[in-house]
Amino acid sequence: MGIRFGGDYNPEQWPEEVWAQDLELMTAAHVTMVTAGIFSWAKVEPRPGEWDFGWFDRVLDGLAGAGIEVCLATMTASPPPWLSRAHPEILPEGPDGQRRWPGARQHFCPSSPVFRAHAVRLVEQLATRYADHPALAMWHVGNEYGCHTRQCFCEVSAQDFRRWLRERYGTVAALNDAWSTSFWSQAYGDFAEVLPPRTAPTFANPAQQLDYLRFGDQALKDCYLAERAVLDRLTPGVPVTTNLMPQHKPVDAFGWAPSMDVVALDFYQDPYVPDDHVRAGYVFDLMRSARGGQPWLLLEQAAGAVNWRPRNGPKPPGAMRLWSWQAVAQGADAVLFFQWRQSRGGAEKFHSAMLPHGGTDTRIFREVCELGRELAAVPGIEGTRSRASVALLADWQSWWALELDSRPSAALDHSHSALAHYRPLFEAGVACDVVPPDRDLSPYPMVVVPNLYLLTADHAARLAAYVRGGGHLVVSFFSGIVDACDRVHPGGYPGPLRELLGLRVAEFWPLAEGASVAVGGEGAHGGRADLWTEEIVPAGAEVVARFLDGELAGRPAVTRHDYGRGTAWYLGTRLEPALLRALLDDVRAAAGVAPVLPGLPAGVQATVREGAGGRYVFLLNHGCRAVEVPLPEPLRDALAPRAAAVTRVELAARGVAVLTGPGPEGGGGAAG
Amino acid sequence: MGIRFGGDYNPEQWPEEVWAQDLELMTAAHVTMVTAGIFSWAKVEPRPGEWDFGWFDRVLDGLAGAGIEVCLATMTASPPPWLSRAHPEILPEGPDGQRRWPGARQHFCPSSPVFRAHAVRLVEQLATRYADHPALAMWHVGNEYGCHTRQCFCEVSAQDFRRWLRERYGTVAALNDAWSTSFWSQAYGDFAEVLPPRTAPTFANPAQQLDYLRFGDQALKDCYLAERAVLDRLTPGVPVTTNLMPQHKPVDAFGWAPSMDVVALDFYQDPYVPDDHVRAGYVFDLMRSARGGQPWLLLEQAAGAVNWRPRNGPKPPGAMRLWSWQAVAQGADAVLFFQWRQSRGGAEKFHSAMLPHGGTDTRIFREVCELGRELAAVPGIEGTRSRASVALLADWQSWWALELDSRPSAALDHSHSALAHYRPLFEAGVACDVVPPDRDLSPYPMVVVPNLYLLTADHAARLAAYVRGGGHLVVSFFSGIVDACDRVHPGGYPGPLRELLGLRVAEFWPLAEGASVAVGGEGAHGGRADLWTEEIVPAGAEVVARFLDGELAGRPAVTRHDYGRGTAWYLGTRLEPALLRALLDDVRAAAGVAPVLPGLPAGVQATVREGAGGRYVFLLNHGCRAVEVPLPEPLRDALAPRAAAVTRVELAARGVAVLTGPGPEGGGGAAG
Amino acid sequence: MGIRFGGDYNPEQWPEEVWAQDLELMTAAHVTMVTAGIFSWAKVEPRPGEWDFGWFDRVLDGLAGAGIEVCLATMTASPPPWLSRAHPEILPEGPDGQRRWPGARQHFCPSSPVFRAHAVRLVEQLATRYADHPALAMWHVGNEYGCHTRQCFCEVSAQDFRRWLRERYGTVAALNDAWSTSFWSQAYGDFAEVLPPRTAPTFANPAQQLDYLRFGDQALKDCYLAERAVLDRLTPGVPVTTNLMPQHKPVDAFGWAPSMDVVALDFYQDPYVPDDHVRAGYVFDLMRSARGGQPWLLLEQAAGAVNWRPRNGPKPPGAMRLWSWQAVAQGADAVLFFQWRQSRGGAEKFHSAMLPHGGTDTRIFREVCELGRELAAVPGIEGTRSRASVALLADWQSWWALELDSRPSAALDHSHSALAHYRPLFEAGVACDVVPPDRDLSPYPMVVVPNLYLLTADHAARLAAYVRGGGHLVVSFFSGIVDACDRVHPGGYPGPLRELLGLRVAEFWPLAEGASVAVGGEGAHGGRADLWTEEIVPAGAEVVARFLDGELAGRPAVTRHDYGRGTAWYLGTRLEPALLRALLDDVRAAAGVAPVLPGLPAGVQATVREGAGGRYVFLLNHGCRAVEVPLPEPLRDALAPRAAAVTRVELAARGVAVLTGPGPEGGGGAAG
Repeated sequence: MGIRFGGDYNPEQWPEEVWAQDLELMTAAHVTMVTAGIFSWAKVEPRPGEWDFGWFDRVLDGLAGAGIEVCLATMTASPPPWLSRAHPEILPEGPDGQRRWPGARQHFCPSSPVFRAHAVRLVEQLATRYADHPALAMWHVGNEYGCHTRQCFCEVSAQDFRRWLRERYGTVAALNDAWSTSFWSQAYGDFAEVLPPRTAPTFANPAQQLDYLRFGDQALKDCYLAERAVLDRLTPGVPVTTNLMPQHKPVDAFGWAPSMDVVALDFYQDPYVPDDHVRAGYVFDLMRSARGGQPWLLLEQAAGAVNWRPRNGPKPPGAMRLWSWQAVAQGADAVLFFQWRQSRGGAEKFHSAMLPHGGTDTRIFREVCELGRELAAVPGIEGTRSRASVALLADWQSWWALELDSRPSAALDHSHSALAHYRPLFEAGVACDVVPPDRDLSPYPMVVVPNLYLLTADHAARLAAYVRGGGHLVVSFFSGIVDACDRVHPGGYPGPLRELLGLRVAEFWPLAEGASVAVGGEGAHGGRADLWTEEIVPAGAEVVARFLDGELAGRPAVTRHDYGRGTAWYLGTRLEPALLRALLDDVRAAAGVAPVLPGLPAGVQATVREGAGGRYVFLLNHGCRAVEVPLPEPLRDALAPRAAAVTRVELAARGVAVLTGPGPEGGGGAAG
Repeated sequence: MGIRFGGDYNPEQWPEEVWAQDLELMTAAHVTMVTAGIFSWAKVEPRPGEWDFGWFDRVLDGLAGAGIEVCLATMTASPPPWLSRAHPEILPEGPDGQRRWPGARQHFCPSSPVFRAHAVRLVEQLATRYADHPALAMWHVGNEYGCHTRQCFCEVSAQDFRRWLRERYGTVAALNDAWSTSFWSQAYGDFAEVLPPRTAPTFANPAQQLDYLRFGDQALKDCYLAERAVLDRLTPGVPVTTNLMPQHKPVDAFGWAPSMDVVALDFYQDPYVPDDHVRAGYVFDLMRSARGGQPWLLLEQAAGAVNWRPRNGPKPPGAMRLWSWQAVAQGADAVLFFQWRQSRGGAEKFHSAMLPHGGTDTRIFREVCELGRELAAVPGIEGTRSRASVALLADWQSWWALELDSRPSAALDHSHSALAHYRPLFEAGVACDVVPPDRDLSPYPMVVVPNLYLLTADHAARLAAYVRGGGHLVVSFFSGIVDACDRVHPGGYPGPLRELLGLRVAEFWPLAEGASVAVGGEGAHGGRADLWTEEIVPAGAEVVARFLDGELAGRPAVTRHDYGRGTAWYLGTRLEPALLRALLDDVRAAAGVAPVLPGLPAGVQATVREGAGGRYVFLLNHGCRAVEVPLPEPLRDALAPRAAAVTRVELAARGVAVLTGPGPEGGGGAAG
Repeated sequence: MGIRFGGDYNPEQWPEEVWAQDLELMTAAHVTMVTAGIFSWAKVEPRPGEWDFGWFDRVLDGLAGAGIEVCLATMTASPPPWLSRAHPEILPEGPDGQRRWPGARQHFCPSSPVFRAHAVRLVEQLATRYADHPALAMWHVGNEYGCHTRQCFCEVSAQDFRRWLRERYGTVAALNDAWSTSFWSQAYGDFAEVLPPRTAPTFANPAQQLDYLRFGDQALKDCYLAERAVLDRLTPGVPVTTNLMPQHKPVDAFGWAPSMDVVALDFYQDPYVPDDHVRAGYVFDLMRSARGGQPWLLLEQAAGAVNWRPRNGPKPPGAMRLWSWQAVAQGADAVLFFQWRQSRGGAEKFHSAMLPHGGTDTRIFREVCELGRELAAVPGIEGTRSRASVALLADWQSWWALELDSRPSAALDHSHSALAHYRPLFEAGVACDVVPPDRDLSPYPMVVVPNLYLLTADHAARLAAYVRGGGHLVVSFFSGIVDACDRVHPGGYPGPLRELLGLRVAEFWPLAEGASVAVGGEGAHGGRADLWTEEIVPAGAEVVARFLDGELAGRPAVTRHDYGRGTAWYLGTRLEPALLRALLDDVRAAAGVAPVLPGLPAGVQATVREGAGGRYVFLLNHGCRAVEVPLPEPLRDALAPRAAAVTRVELAARGVAVLTGPGPEGGGGAAG
C-alpha cells in the first residue's frame, strides 16, 4: 500500500450530492485512506436506540468503490444532545465543582458508567454492521482522549477514584502511608472519606493530586479499552488505534501504546513558532519509540492554518510538504489531515482542509495533490525502520509529579526541559529515541535524563546498571528526588542516584526570575546558566565546570563520575543552549555517537529508514536558504526514480530529498 | 426650551431639608431638566405592593415649582432586597452557572417573568400617579440596559431561549441547519434539548453563541418594551427613552432606536486616554444616525472624574465644557450629568457630580454654572440637524459574530476597527454618519465598510447597487465572509462581494503578534501594515498597492474596481493610520467629499447644525494650544450675540466657538 | 529561661523510633521550646469522640525529660476527614458560592457552630489531660487564623452576619443609614434580607463589604475565644497565644492583642526581595507595639528556603542568624522555626527545617546549632524593652476601607504605603512604634499618618489634641476622608483634619499609570512624585513644596501648619523615596528625634533593649560588605562575655553584634 495519505472525512456536513465529487477529488489527490465517522453519533443514533446507518453505508460503499481504505471511527467522541439531557450526570465537573455543559464536544465524565454503556452499545452496532465491509482497514477509537476534559471531579468520578484506590492500596493504612496524610491532619479512617483533589483553601496533598492524575489517565484508558474489547470480540483481525496528542499531559502515551495495535498522533506545527519542527522531531521520535520502533500514523495535521490559536498563521509554500515528509522521515507510515473538505459552519470552519473553501483552484489543494503523488511514488518506505544511538528518557509519572504545587521552583516545566535536552541532539543530527525509564537501555551508547524528579529506586538501579555496563549517562538536576508517592528519597538528594553520580546535593538554590550565573572554569566550556543552581558535594565525582559567581561561586556546576565500565555526568543547573550543546557534544564524543550523516549544513535534518522495502535517506531543509548536502555514498532520488545516483544534493529552502541506495546488507533496495 | 441641561437627581440620598437648597442651586446653575427616580424602587415600594409616593410627590412638586422638567425614571433598574429574597430565581446566572447576587444593582434575569411582572406593576403605579404631573416631560425606562448583566444563562433564560428559537426557526430541522449541528455531533432531536451556551469543554457552537447574543439583546428589549407598553397606554403623549451606552455590545442601538421616541446616550470620556474625543465623535455620530439624524440626548456624563476606572483622572479646566459642546455640535439636544449632588456613601461616592463634596466653592460647580448659562444663551440650536457626506457602516450582528471564538485571528476587534476607520474621516474634518447596512446609502457620495465579517447576501447586494449607481465604496478585509448563521458564504471569499470588488481571496494570512509588513508600490502611498494580510487574486480589480515583503511580497494589498458608475476599493490588510488616512483622502477626492470647513488647523473639530432655529457652526479645539481658524464667510459669535460678524476665530486650548450665520436658504438665522 | 529557641514539632510524621534521635539532636541544637501538635487532630481523634492520646503522652514526656518546654497547640487548625464528611456544611464557600474542599487545611467556615463545638470538645480533652504536664509552658490556639480561609460566604456565615449586624445596629433603619442603602435601591426591610457581599453584577455596597471584613475578623476571633475560654477555665495560669501573620489583612492584630497573653508572629523573609528586612522591621515594630512594648514571640520562620513562593530562594550563609537576631533586637523573646525535621511527604516537604533532608551534615543544621548556642549565651535579654520616639499609625479599619472597589485610584495599597512611610525612618536609624489611632500619642515627639482613609471624628480629634499639645505630625494624602461607615465626612476633604492641617482639598487628581510630576520650589527639596496629586487650597497652612508641572503646576504639594504648640505637615502626593526621606528628616529635626546611635553606616540597624536583665545594644549589618561601627560609649560583646569593652565594632557582611553596657540607671547589666 505505501504511506497512507488522506484525512478525516465528515460527509454528514454536506448534502449527499457532494459525496460523488468528494470521491472524484480524493482520487485526483491520491488519497488512499480516510478516517470516517468521528462525529457521526448524533446522525447514526438520532434518538436513543434508534439507528440510522443507511447514509453511512453509502459513504463506505463509495469509498470502497474508489479503492480508499477507511480508518473507521467508533463515533463516541461527542455524545449527542439527547444523551446528556436524559443523563445530566454524564457531564464532567471541574475541580471547582462547575459542570462543563454540552455545546462543544467531549462533554462526558470518563468514569461515567452511563456514558460507557451507551458508547459500548454504539460500538457493538458499528462493529457488527461493518465487520466485513471491504472499506474497513482499521478502527479509530474515540478521538483525542483528554483533549478538553482532562479530568473530571464529579461524584461519579469520586466513587470510581475510591474503587481505584482500594485496588491500588488495599487498606486505608497503606493509603495514609502513601499519601503522607500525617501532615496537615489528613489521615483517613475509611476510603469513603476520600475525595478528588477539588479546589481547597490552599495547596492540596501532592500525593493525592498525583494519584488523581494517574487515575484520570486510567479512566480515559478504561473508556478506550471498553470500546476496544468490543472490537476485539467482533472484528478480531482489524487493527485498533486512537489518535494520541503530542506532549499531552493527561494521557501517558507509553502506558497506552501496548494496548494499541499501531500508535497514532495528531500534530499541528505552529508556523509562527520558530523551530517548531524541533518540537515535532521530539514528539515524532517519542511516537516511534512508543512501540519500540514500529512505524506510526500521523492521523491529523493541517493542510494550512488552524483556527484555535490566538493568531493562526498559514503554512507558507512548501511547509506542508516539508513537515509531512518530516513525519515520514521519523517513522510515520501515514500522513492524514483534519479534514478533507473545509466546513461551512461550526467551530472549526476556519481550520484549513485538504479541499479549502476556495475549492480546487487554490495553492493548498494543489500542494495536497502533489504531496499525494509523491508519497504514492515511494511505496517501499512503508514498514521500514530507523536505528538510534541516543535515548532520551521521558516519563509521565515524573511529569505529573514535577509540576504539582509547592516545588522549590514553579518554573520547572517538563515539556520545556524535554525539548531543551532534545534540541542539541537534533541539531547535531543525531538519531534519538525517546523512551520511558523501564526500557532496555543497553543498546544505546548514550542516555540523557532530563529532570526526572520522580524516579523509583528500581528505575534508578536500571540507570546504575546501564552505566556499570559501559553506558554514558547524562542526568540533569532535580532528578531522583521522590519515590512513586512523591515522598523524598531518604538519605539526602538525589537519593538513589548518589552512588551512581558520585555526589550529594546539600541544598537546592533555584534562581530568582531573570537571574543567571556564570559557569565554566579551567578547561571547561564557559557560559551562563539560569533557573536552578544547587550545592553539590562531590563524593567521587570530578568537577567538569563550576559556578563562577553568585552565592555558590567556586562550587561544582557540572560533574563527571566514572562508574563501572561507564561514565555518569551530572548537570546541577540549566545551561544555556550553546553550553548544553557543547557538553553533550563532549559526551557524544566519549560515547562514540556520530550524526546520521557527516557534514550536514545547519538547518538540515537527515534520517534513515530501512527494511524490506529498501533503504531511504531523508534530507529536510528546515532553513530559509538553498543548501547543498554532500552524501557519503552515491544515492538515487527516490522521487525521480529514473535519475542517476548522485553524491551531492541541492536542497531548496524548505526542500526535501528522499534518496535511496545501498540497503542494510549493502544491496540497493530500489523503491517499490 | 433650548438644549436641556441638568442631571440625575437622587433626593432619597439626602434629608428632605436639603431639597430646597437643591432647587435653589439648580436654578443658579441654569438646570432645566433632571432625571429623577432611577434608584427609588426600594423607597416607593418598601414592601411588596405597599406604596409610598408621598415623598416623591414633594420632589416632583418642587421641581415643577422651580420650572425644571423631569425625565421620569421607571425606577426598575435595581430591584429592592425583598424581591430577590422572595424570588431568588430572578437572580441572573453566568455561563459558569454561578449566580450573581444582590448587593450592587441590575441583579435580575432579563427573561424572568417574575421580575417583569413586578416591574410592570411599578410602572403602572408611576404612570397612573404622575400622568398629569406638570413636571413630567419624558419617561426614562430602566437604566443602562445590559450594563452589568449582559446575558443570563439560568434555566428561566434557557426556556425563554427555546421559545425564541421556536419562533425564529419553526422546526428543529431548520435549527440544526442554521447551527451546522452536523459538526461535532450536535444535532438536536427536540427544542427541549437546547441550552444556552454555558461553559463547555472547549469552543461552543458559534451559531448557538451568535443566536444567544441576539436573544440576549431581545430579552433586554422585551423588558424595555413591557414597560413602554404601560406608558403608551397610560401616558400616550409623553416621549419615552432609555439611556443607551456607547459601543455597548449587548444592546443593538440600531435595533432599539425605532422603539424609542428619542435616543439617548451615557458617555464618559476618559481624560487619561489621548484623543478619547475621537471615540466620542464616533459614538455621537452613531447616536445621531440611529434615528436618521434626529437630535439625541446626552443623558449622563461626568462633571469631573468617575470612580469606576482603575485610575480616575479628573477633567482638567475647560474639558467638561469642550466635551459637552462636542455632544451638542454632533447633534445632542440635552447635556445631563450623573449626578446632581455627589453622594456621601455607596458605591459611587467618588464619582464627581455637578455639586461636589466640596460644595459650591469649587471649580466644578463654577464650570457647571457657566456651561448652563452658555447653553441657555443659544436656545435656537434645539432641533437643528446636520448633513453628512460619508457613511460608515456598523452592524451589531457582525460585531457579535466577529468576536466569537476560533476565528483566523483573535486580535480582530470590532470597536477598534470601527474607530480606526472613523479616525481619518474625523481628522479630515469630514461629516460622517454611522449607519447600519440596511440604511439607504444613495445620499452618500462615499461609504466605508470596516470588517463586516457577517454580511447577508441581501446587504451585499445593496452595496453592489450603491456602487453601480455611482457610489464610492471602501471595504476592509474580512468582510462578507459569513451569512446570518455564521456559515461561510460558498464559492470562495468574500462570497457575495467578489463580483463587486473584482477579486477573490484565496487564503487568509493573519500576522503574528508584533509582526508587520511593508505596503506600497509604484505610485502608491507606502508604509506599514499589521494584524492581517491575505492572498488576493484580482479578477477585474486593479492593484492600488502591494505587499513589499513577507510571504505575500508582490501580491495585492489594496485594490480598486470600477463597477457600474462607481468604484469599490478593497483593503486586504490593516494599514497604519497615516496610510489609511492617505488612502481615504484619495477616495474622498474621487468621491468629491470635502471637509465641513476648509483650512481647519489640526485638532480642531468643526460641525454645522441647521434648521428652523438657525444655522450654527461649532468649532472645538481639542488641542492644547491656541489656534486661529479662518472662516469661509462672516459669522457671528452665538455666545456673545451682540458682537459683529468675523471671518476668523481665535480658539484657546480646549476652546469652543459657537457661530451663527447665513441659514440654509442663505438668510442669517439669529440665535433664539 | 532566656530567649526561647526551637520550632514546630510534628512527631506523627515519623516512626516512634525517630523520636529519641529528635530529643538528642534538639539538645545538641540548644532547643528550649517546641510547638507540638499543630496538625495532630486526626491522630488524637481518629474517629468522632474516640481519643488516642497515648502516643502524644510519650512525646510530651520525652520533651519534659529533655528539659524542653512545650507551646502546646490546640490542634484545631485542620479538621480531620471524618468531620467534613459527616458535616459538609462546615466547608467554607467563596463569594462566588464555590465550596472549598478538604485536601489541604483550614477548610472550615469560621462561623460554623458544628466546627466550633468539635474544636471546643477537643480542647477540653487536651486541657484536662495536660493541665499538669511538666512540659506545658504555653497554649498555641489554632494556627495562622485566616491564612487561607479569610472569609466564608456560606449560608451559615450569612446567618451569623445577620446576628452580628443586629447587635451592631439594633434596627434595620440604623443599618440602612450606616450602609447608605438609599443608593442603588438597596434599602432593607428586614435583617433577614441581608446577605454577605457575594459576587454581584458590579461593585457591591462598600459599607456592606467593610462590615463583612469586620465580621470576618470577629468570626475568626470568636473561634479563638471559644477555645481560649476552655483554657482559661481548665488551665488558668498558662499563658495563651496564637501565631499572627505579618501585615495580614483579615486579622486585626491590634484588636486581637488584648485577648492574647503574649503576641506571637510567623514571619518569612524573602531572600530574593531586596531589603525585605525593612518589611520585617515594620512588622516586628508593629508586633512589639501591639501590647504596648511587651516582648513577643517569633513563632515561625524558615531555617532556609520555603516552598510556597513561585521561586524559593534559600537563605545565604549568615542570613538566618542575622534575621533571627533582628527579631530579638526588635523585641522578640523567642525564635522558633517551622519546623524541626523536614517532612518526607506532603505539601511542605520542600519547606526547609532545622534538620534538613540532608541530615546533620548540612550548613543549615550547623547554623541552627550555632544560633541556639548564641541565644543561650545571653539569657538576660528576655523581658527587656525598647523605647521609640516616633509613632507610625496603622489601622485595619482604614486598610479594609481603603482597598475596596471604586476608589479614586485602585493603585492605593495599604501595605505599600505603610512600608513607604516606615522605610525612611528605619533607614535613618530611628526607633519607631507602629500603633493604632486610639493609642496615647503624647509620649512621641513625632507621629506619621500614612493614608488613613477611614478616620473617625474622634480619632481625628486625638490627632488635633496631640499637635495642640506640641506634637509633630505628618499626614499623607487621602487621609481622613470617610467615617466608620465609609461615608465621606461632610464639609469638604479631609473633613475632620481640615482645621488641624490648615487647608482643604478641592479635588483629587490621581495620576495615570506611569505618570509622575515634579515637586519642589524655593528652598524645598526637589524631586518626583507619582500615583496621586490633589488640588490643595491652603487655609492657614504654609506651602513647603509645590507641583512644578502638570495640570496642578504651581499649586501646593506639601504644606506645614503650626497648630497649638505643635506642627502638622501634609503631603498631597506620593513623594519619591529620597524626597520623602528628606522631608521626614526635616520633621525629625524640628521634633528633636535622633537615631538610636549616631554615625551608623548605611545598611546597619541598631536597637537597644533594656530592663532588669541589663542593657543590650544590637548592631545588625544588612549590607553585603564589612563595616566598622563607632560606639558612643564603651560596650562589651555579650556573645563573648570575657572580652573587654570596646568603642568600635567590626561587623562582617550579614554580621551581628550584641553589646551590653551601662544600664538605664547607668550600671553595667552583665549578661545572665
